[in-house]
Amino acid sequence: MRIDVKKNILASNNSLAATNRERLEKHGVCMVNLMASPGAGKTSVIMRAIEGAAGDPAMAVIEGDIASEIDSLAIEAMDIPALQINTGGSCHLTAAMIGSALDHLDLEALDLVIIENVGNLVCPAEFDLGETSRVMISSIAEGHDKPYKYPLMFREVEAVLINKVDLAPYCDFDMRQFRKVVGELNPKATIIEMSCTEGQGVEEWNHWLAGTAAPVK
Amino acid sequence: MRIDVKKNILASNNSLAATNRERLEKHGVCMVNLMASPGAGKTSVIMRAIEGAAGDPAMAVIEGDIASEIDSLAIEAMDIPALQINTGGSCHLTAAMIGSALDHLDLEALDLVIIENVGNLVCPAEFDLGETSRVMISSIAEGHDKPYKYPLMFREVEAVLINKVDLAPYCDFDMRQFRKVVGELNPKATIIEMSCTEGQGVEEWNHWLAGTAAPVK
Repeated sequence: MRIDVKKNILASNNSLAATNRERLEKHGVCMVNLMASPGAGKTSVIMRAIEGAAGDPAMAVIEGDIASEIDSLAIEAMDIPALQINTGGSCHLTAAMIGSALDHLDLEALDLVIIENVGNLVCPAEFDLGETSRVMISSIAEGHDKPYKYPLMFREVEAVLINKVDLAPYCDFDMRQFRKVVGELNPKATIIEMSCTEGQGVEEWNHWLAGTAAPVK
Repeated sequence: MRIDVKKNILASNNSLAATNRERLEKHGVCMVNLMASPGAGKTSVIMRAIEGAAGDPAMAVIEGDIASEIDSLAIEAMDIPALQINTGGSCHLTAAMIGSALDHLDLEALDLVIIENVGNLVCPAEFDLGETSRVMISSIAEGHDKPYKYPLMFREVEAVLINKVDLAPYCDFDMRQFRKVVGELNPKATIIEMSCTEGQGVEEWNHWLAGTAAPVK
């Protein structure tokens, strides 16, 4: 007998994700699953969203990391509810982890939950968390060949943020080539060029996020 | 009955890694497992090693990616044997994959095999491939907090390359803090600051690699 472990794990996860999704819909809460490599700027992108929203939509953040509470402490310092999930060894968040986190949030008071997934371009793309939409960040410093190497991640998202464009003058990044390959993998994805340090594209990101959160209420 | 899938997978992997290790030792070949986030500069670091060696030690490269042959083609263009492993969905290389790759190399003619693992700071650290030593790269653009977030990877390696130091003037990277935390996690690790584009630290990296490969023969 052959036991397909991966298939069983994903099926069980999908069922818990559906439960999360129903629960959020009941309370009119939108949830965004933000994924990226380590150090692409996930926490900064969330901080710019918090500043842009200024309380509307009402937000909470779920931080996923192997270890440490650095990111949730940074978010809490902005007076936003922040939950830290430490996965131990696991390279991605699961629907079960998110379900437990949602228990600790006052969903009736919220419009939007942003999940910062574990820094990884591979497995997070395979695990549905019950989110309303998926966003990924690719940093200029990582190079323009990432869509070739991690195609599933680029295919699975509604928006691709190209972060750290302020580093473009110092990196060998071919924006045209990057946009071309992303367009082929995922023609419907919104692509936003941004710099969390210098502000470029931040308004566009906030606008996209507000549009995603709005129809839920 | 509880089946510990992960424990079984790792035990089976360790056994195959031991086989790879014996095989390499028999032929006097050293193998380095190079790990990093996507876009930290793994392929560039390998290319600088190939240039530095200039045929001595005699090298081959095993490239691990979810998809694409970009990296192995770049290495082959330097007249070095290069094998591409496409893992499909898997976020790390395994000892079985490396065993199959070694079948295609003329081990008697080689001194050093460099493995470029899948871009991921999590699972590759858990899978022994039968390597002689482990090296990781952390890019300046990823920020100095990575050792807190991915401690196992920083603990498991013999050398940490801090790549893209040419971007330091444009990034908020605290080198002292980074070195302090790496030193606490892994006091024996060699730390090399380098820039593959501007050349800083490349000689030190080549020297380290030659020292690692030398005792095997």
